Amino acid sequence: MKKTKLWGGAFAEAPDETAWRFGQSIESDWNLLAEELEVSLAHARMLERQKILPAAKAKKLIRALESLVRDAEEGRLKIPRDAEDIHAAVEEELRKRVGDIAGMLHTGRSRNDQIATVARLYLRRRCDRLLSLIKDLQREIVKQGARHANAPMPGYTHQQRAQPVTLGFHLLAWFWMLQRDGERLETVKISANTCPLGAAALAGTPFKIDRHWTAKQLGFDGPTPNALDAVSDRDFASDALHACATLMLHLSRMSQEIVLWSSEEFGFLRLPDRVTTGSSIMPQKRNPDFAELIRGRSARCFGHWVAHMSMMKALPLGYNRDTQEDKPPLFDALALCRDSLLLMRTMIEGAQFDKQRMREAAEAGHIAATAVADFLASKGVPFRQAHERVGRLVRACEEVGLTLREATPDLIRSVLQADPDEILPLLSAEAGIRSRDGYGGPGPNAMKVQLAEARAALRRKGFVARQ
Amino acid sequence: MKKTKLWGGAFAEAPDETAWRFGQSIESDWNLLAEELEVSLAHARMLERQKILPAAKAKKLIRALESLVRDAEEGRLKIPRDAEDIHAAVEEELRKRVGDIAGMLHTGRSRNDQIATVARLYLRRRCDRLLSLIKDLQREIVKQGARHANAPMPGYTHQQRAQPVTLGFHLLAWFWMLQRDGERLETVKISANTCPLGAAALAGTPFKIDRHWTAKQLGFDGPTPNALDAVSDRDFASDALHACATLMLHLSRMSQEIVLWSSEEFGFLRLPDRVTTGSSIMPQKRNPDFAELIRGRSARCFGHWVAHMSMMKALPLGYNRDTQEDKPPLFDALALCRDSLLLMRTMIEGAQFDKQRMREAAEAGHIAATAVADFLASKGVPFRQAHERVGRLVRACEEVGLTLREATPDLIRSVLQADPDEILPLLSAEAGIRSRDGYGGPGPNAMKVQLAEARAALRRKGFVARQ
Amino acid sequence: MKKTKLWGGAFAEAPDETAWRFGQSIESDWNLLAEELEVSLAHARMLERQKILPAAKAKKLIRALESLVRDAEEGRLKIPRDAEDIHAAVEEELRKRVGDIAGMLHTGRSRNDQIATVARLYLRRRCDRLLSLIKDLQREIVKQGARHANAPMPGYTHQQRAQPVTLGFHLLAWFWMLQRDGERLETVKISANTCPLGAAALAGTPFKIDRHWTAKQLGFDGPTPNALDAVSDRDFASDALHACATLMLHLSRMSQEIVLWSSEEFGFLRLPDRVTTGSSIMPQKRNPDFAELIRGRSARCFGHWVAHMSMMKALPLGYNRDTQEDKPPLFDALALCRDSLLLMRTMIEGAQFDKQRMREAAEAGHIAATAVADFLASKGVPFRQAHERVGRLVRACEEVGLTLREATPDLIRSVLQADPDEILPLLSAEAGIRSRDGYGGPGPNAMKVQLAEARAALRRKGFVARQ
Amino acid sequence: MKKTKLWGGAFAEAPDETAWRFGQSIESDWNLLAEELEVSLAHARMLERQKILPAAKAKKLIRALESLVRDAEEGRLKIPRDAEDIHAAVEEELRKRVGDIAGMLHTGRSRNDQIATVARLYLRRRCDRLLSLIKDLQREIVKQGARHANAPMPGYTHQQRAQPVTLGFHLLAWFWMLQRDGERLETVKISANTCPLGAAALAGTPFKIDRHWTAKQLGFDGPTPNALDAVSDRDFASDALHACATLMLHLSRMSQEIVLWSSEEFGFLRLPDRVTTGSSIMPQKRNPDFAELIRGRSARCFGHWVAHMSMMKALPLGYNRDTQEDKPPLFDALALCRDSLLLMRTMIEGAQFDKQRMREAAEAGHIAATAVADFLASKGVPFRQAHERVGRLVRACEEVGLTLREATPDLIRSVLQADPDEILPLLSAEAGIRSRDGYGGPGPNAMKVQLAEARAALRRKGFVARQ
Repeated sequence: MKKTKLWGGAFAEAPDETAWRFGQSIESDWNLLAEELEVSLAHARMLERQKILPAAKAKKLIRALESLVRDAEEGRLKIPRDAEDIHAAVEEELRKRVGDIAGMLHTGRSRNDQIATVARLYLRRRCDRLLSLIKDLQREIVKQGARHANAPMPGYTHQQRAQPVTLGFHLLAWFWMLQRDGERLETVKISANTCPLGAAALAGTPFKIDRHWTAKQLGFDGPTPNALDAVSDRDFASDALHACATLMLHLSRMSQEIVLWSSEEFGFLRLPDRVTTGSSIMPQKRNPDFAELIRGRSARCFGHWVAHMSMMKALPLGYNRDTQEDKPPLFDALALCRDSLLLMRTMIEGAQFDKQRMREAAEAGHIAATAVADFLASKGVPFRQAHERVGRLVRACEEVGLTLREATPDLIRSVLQADPDEILPLLSAEAGIRSRDGYGGPGPNAMKVQLAEARAALRRKGFVARQ
Repeated sequence: MKKTKLWGGAFAEAPDETAWRFGQSIESDWNLLAEELEVSLAHARMLERQKILPAAKAKKLIRALESLVRDAEEGRLKIPRDAEDIHAAVEEELRKRVGDIAGMLHTGRSRNDQIATVARLYLRRRCDRLLSLIKDLQREIVKQGARHANAPMPGYTHQQRAQPVTLGFHLLAWFWMLQRDGERLETVKISANTCPLGAAALAGTPFKIDRHWTAKQLGFDGPTPNALDAVSDRDFASDALHACATLMLHLSRMSQEIVLWSSEEFGFLRLPDRVTTGSSIMPQKRNPDFAELIRGRSARCFGHWVAHMSMMKALPLGYNRDTQEDKPPLFDALALCRDSLLLMRTMIEGAQFDKQRMREAAEAGHIAATAVADFLASKGVPFRQAHERVGRLVRACEEVGLTLREATPDLIRSVLQADPDEILPLLSAEAGIRSRDGYGGPGPNAMKVQLAEARAALRRKGFVARQ
Repeated sequence: MKKTKLWGGAFAEAPDETAWRFGQSIESDWNLLAEELEVSLAHARMLERQKILPAAKAKKLIRALESLVRDAEEGRLKIPRDAEDIHAAVEEELRKRVGDIAGMLHTGRSRNDQIATVARLYLRRRCDRLLSLIKDLQREIVKQGARHANAPMPGYTHQQRAQPVTLGFHLLAWFWMLQRDGERLETVKISANTCPLGAAALAGTPFKIDRHWTAKQLGFDGPTPNALDAVSDRDFASDALHACATLMLHLSRMSQEIVLWSSEEFGFLRLPDRVTTGSSIMPQKRNPDFAELIRGRSARCFGHWVAHMSMMKALPLGYNRDTQEDKPPLFDALALCRDSLLLMRTMIEGAQFDKQRMREAAEAGHIAATAVADFLASKGVPFRQAHERVGRLVRACEEVGLTLREATPDLIRSVLQADPDEILPLLSAEAGIRSRDGYGGPGPNAMKVQLAEARAALRRKGFVARQ
Repeated sequence: MKKTKLWGGAFAEAPDETAWRFGQSIESDWNLLAEELEVSLAHARMLERQKILPAAKAKKLIRALESLVRDAEEGRLKIPRDAEDIHAAVEEELRKRVGDIAGMLHTGRSRNDQIATVARLYLRRRCDRLLSLIKDLQREIVKQGARHANAPMPGYTHQQRAQPVTLGFHLLAWFWMLQRDGERLETVKISANTCPLGAAALAGTPFKIDRHWTAKQLGFDGPTPNALDAVSDRDFASDALHACATLMLHLSRMSQEIVLWSSEEFGFLRLPDRVTTGSSIMPQKRNPDFAELIRGRSARCFGHWVAHMSMMKALPLGYNRDTQEDKPPLFDALALCRDSLLLMRTMIEGAQFDKQRMREAAEAGHIAATAVADFLASKGVPFRQAHERVGRLVRACEEVGLTLREATPDLIRSVLQADPDEILPLLSAEAGIRSRDGYGGPGPNAMKVQLAEARAALRRKGFVARQ
């Protein structure tokens, strides 16, 4: 097996076989092919423009790189399994096409600044894709949210039914979680957008390169201000991993609710067949596997963040080989977010809700208790006392096996010291929901406002990075 | 022991002793006292303004809260060890001063929205403090960086001397790491700055509260748009933990360099006595304990992030008691960052560098090799070939026990195929540094530009959040 | 504020105030007081025995230490807030009682070996306590398990009802999880049980100490074989953190089931009042707060493990101050396990199960489908075909709104190609349970065997470490 | 693309394309092929033995499985990319060979118990391999340790030279770290060694299977005692991840020392070329890349543990699809340990130490200070006073630019109040080392004992699990 190495002059002995395999990153790096070529091309054009390379040779190099770009786009380049990394692989391909001139591409740059530039460019592109997928998912949520804006369901605290809300209200909570994810990723994209190219190994280069020009060509806001920091910094990766982990965390919470709502006990939700699986042994099962997988895989992103941070901890500045490990977790996290967003959209788009069952749950038991306590308080009873009276009523009802809605007028009168005719109308789900109509609440007017705000956010291009 | 509980009407049996202790959060919550009172006061004023409470009672409540604020500021309030949490503690104090009216404070709010509001307010304040400490540290770095702008030292890759740089250049790399920390924390502060107050338990309240007014009073950008999301969301905490972890990661890298540079092997740095400790058994030791402690404790922040994310994973929306765990890690991370920034400033402010030793290290061995390869390349030798020739020269020198600076003219001529008179001047540290004078490099003009940029950043109020 | 330091001769300048606070570990270390004194006493006795100290002075030292032990046991020693760490605090106390002789205690030892010995001793004791609490919890589980050995409930996969099992069977699954925790902790205890004392700073001591004797006095299996490893190794802490994290993980799974079973949707379980809390705003709530807190805090143990591992990563051997961070997470994890075990026992001991509701759930829907498929397979239908036929039957039932138990004989005959008289008896929960009576299953005989095995395990002293 | 699914009867709609890809685990599962076949074969033989399947059909099934085993061993089976998981892939292959009888293999088992059994079997094998590699590495360490048993080098604390030790002594510290890794993995192997097969989906099976027989056939200690626990438990994976993480942590510490010792500043170590790499831009570099990669990748194992624990947290019992995520981290961690052990062995085997440089470092500066303090203490000076006197001497030396070895007799006499003739001989590295000759120390006799213990451990078969 031939090993293409970019170094070797000072070495007497061939590298160990396990060592070679251990050090290779080509398979993972292959994701970066398009960006590797794009950065190389910008660098080559700058070398020509700055007359660092002789014009003829520079042109030849540029044309060869352009042909590589085309071949890559059309899928004609295959991963060369014997290359150490993507830089070596590309140089090898180049060498086949233009011979030794290929070596000139490394003038005024190093693998250290090259890989950092390529990774940032790649990250920017993947962020754009995720931002668009977040919008797609939000759009489905708004659709379902609007459809069920006024459909009663129980709101929970401590996994206990607490107060009646609406399905639309609950789903819009998901919308705003995702809105923060969009804003966070937008920030990641922006803060990653400075260009290390030209920092070379760690201290720049004696060649008269133009870092501002290449940065601009590649769509960066400008070059990084310190070459040593440029090759040592991996904040862009950890920020992205945090954003991915947070997005997956949000999807894990939605997934948990989907799993629960799909259970026989809740019975709120039926997922479409195309995102449901069966059991090899229990033919009746409709398993919410993809919600479970998203839930489970969110943990993978936590692991990636830990691996990255722990890997970077206490590393002296300047390139250390440890940081080769920055890419596989990043690639995996970004792909996981993409797939999870796609699947979540499919689940929500096709979700069928059992509104009858949800309404029943929203009116069962003692769920209207808060509404009663609030009512007493509005009549001047100090809140703590109101709360205690309702508590006693609940207990009295439980002792005789009644729900709050079934409490007798006498019981209400004696325990609450209130007029049953004022209390009883408070006990329907609709009454509870209608009364909570202030900004951000589930009431009908509040929901109109919230839906309008959500739609306005959807219409905006991208997400506003918090500033 | 008396237990102050805000609930209990529906319960027959007293809480278990271990359970009580397990559920208490008062000691940790006590950090939030100032913000708890401030939010309560804004809420009480709003209740008065909206005429939700009778004017006389509201005024009494407000005056009592104001007296509590004064007492708290003057340290006259003590942690009541038998209170469950800070809300219960404050209500108890209020009750002592105004009797049952105290209970009215809970009208139109719940512990769920209250704690989320208080925590965000607290976070905003602590971010401001950290931002200011980051600037202080950066200021010391710029001072030392300017002082040693042109002092040669080795730049390292793979912990091997790679190319000569300057101490000022290296220190400024730290500056830019911290600049990103400032920008990140600024973003955290901004994105946490919406107000959950009024979301109540999870679905708002029937009282005609004015959420926009309280949000504004407390300096928030506005109320959160969905009440369920408002009480379920803890992104502000995880974003802060990520920012703290990243800051500590950067400090751990600086610390690692301080530890190494303070070793006898490097001998670059002598820390001031006031941040150095001795050994109980080895009297000669000058241990860089605080750099070690910062390095070690950075890991604690990673743990906090993991604890938070893993705690939040797959939680259904609506308040779950699990999230009580959001605060201790946050408090600890913020305090750790504060102390570490202070100590790092002290270390850098008093650092004495052994410039002679650094210069020697910057000229020893084969460190000028890249400069030679770059020179050959600039003369038209394809970079790969240039690289290989210099590699052979290094090997030839090693075989006879010479450093590159000691290579004979004959050796240079035969191996490099270059004129020794052109090569030899490249081999001093200054030559290497001077030649790398492009944007972001260690050369003298580049350093002037970089110092000017750093000073301009220092002069700006706060940090520009990336947008 | 006076600072008691064990070092200082070589220093001109007083330590920085923040530095002092940052470096202190006395509050956390105070947990180790009993063990600190015990190790010191063993060391002092060895110094006397080996005649390293003059007999009279040694005796005086020993008596003073003995008086300290008594004072500590009776709670008469208070944390001296101005001491740096526990070693300094104890020496200071000793100095008050015997003057300068106190300094002789450090002959032939260092803080490095001292703290490692003390920590291991402490860990051994806390493991014993946890092992005993695990047994207590297991005992309650066996009681409830035996009580409900044959009470039907649904077994779940993918949070979907899958097959009928019994409550006793489910509870015993918890028993075996805890059994592994016991075995794991037993292993931790054993592998931590070698004694670093005498390793001194990192390389032993010139004094003729007897490491085997002190090791034996303190109940260790023997001294550690390499002094450098002895002061550098913190595996005992990470092993303990892993064992605690795994225990808490198991408790988090039980907690999740307790939370779900306590919900109105499941309605399987009513927790006793003494481990249930109410809501400040919703008087009817019976919140399973302690199950939620255990679930949430399990994440804290994950964070502790990460903090520890990441702190230790890539540390050169020999004591580094970073490792001071090994104790706070360990103390917290052990205390958290203790409290969680106590609370879980209280929850299980007082748990009231709604067996009627569980039985209904165990017979609803299509839960008997597997039993039918298994029956067909036992009649020679290849399993895949049997599975598909039952799947079609389920679908046919769903289309007309029937459960499997309500399927008409005609439907059964046509879709299953089987005799309805043979199929219908399979559809009760009891039939399903009775049929699964092989080793490890929920059937009545299998449950008898399993209960007997569990009781035998309970009767054994301690847990058998896996070997 | 054809999708081989083991379920589907109850479904109207085809699975979503992304969903299909998201749910697939075949590529990762393919690692388990040998064990999947082995477990299937044992199950089939049991079905025949228990007469659950008709003899002829059972025999056919068994023969087909045997042929699959042969084909797998000879690499003739290719990953079928369109299969969902390995169970489906194997069944499909079987179906090609024996038609519908293939479906009978699932009689009395489920994917849930099957995968758990296969994973445990796989883990046992990989543990055996790692145990053997650990011994190999230990063997090289003992060789180098014996070779350099008495070669002086500095021992460090706080990265400061503390006391002279020997290289052999330092290397043996590595030996004992690995010894604990061996013991830990042995324990993992043993505690994973119970057999879930026959637990079926979660509650056993009505077929009269013999779980004890299959367990024995597959080399397990016996069947798991509770079927629900059997399919829910993943402790074997988390225990293995902890053991791998700890092993990698140890290797990261060795790697850090290799990196430092290979630096120009230390200059202690030259790695063999075959595990050293060069630089694409700096021809003189001899980069310890594999030490860096091991150090960096250790963090990956921390991430895997976190991902696993966080994934399992709060999962209700019974199979949940989340747990499909248990395998990729496990496979990766085991492979990483394998490669890292191999590479570390290569590095140590070929390591060349610069003993002259190490000796010089072991005698430079004030490194003998402790020896002097110990000497004073042995003469009756209370240790604290001895310590302070030596501290003053060090400071006096530093002020005039002397090392301790160069201190004048007058200075020694006046500051130490001791006879210079007794002090001066203490100041050589050999003197320091020779004096520390108690159990576990670096002295010559102690080293003989330690080497003998290490060799005895090497000779033992496997590692003694701590019990």
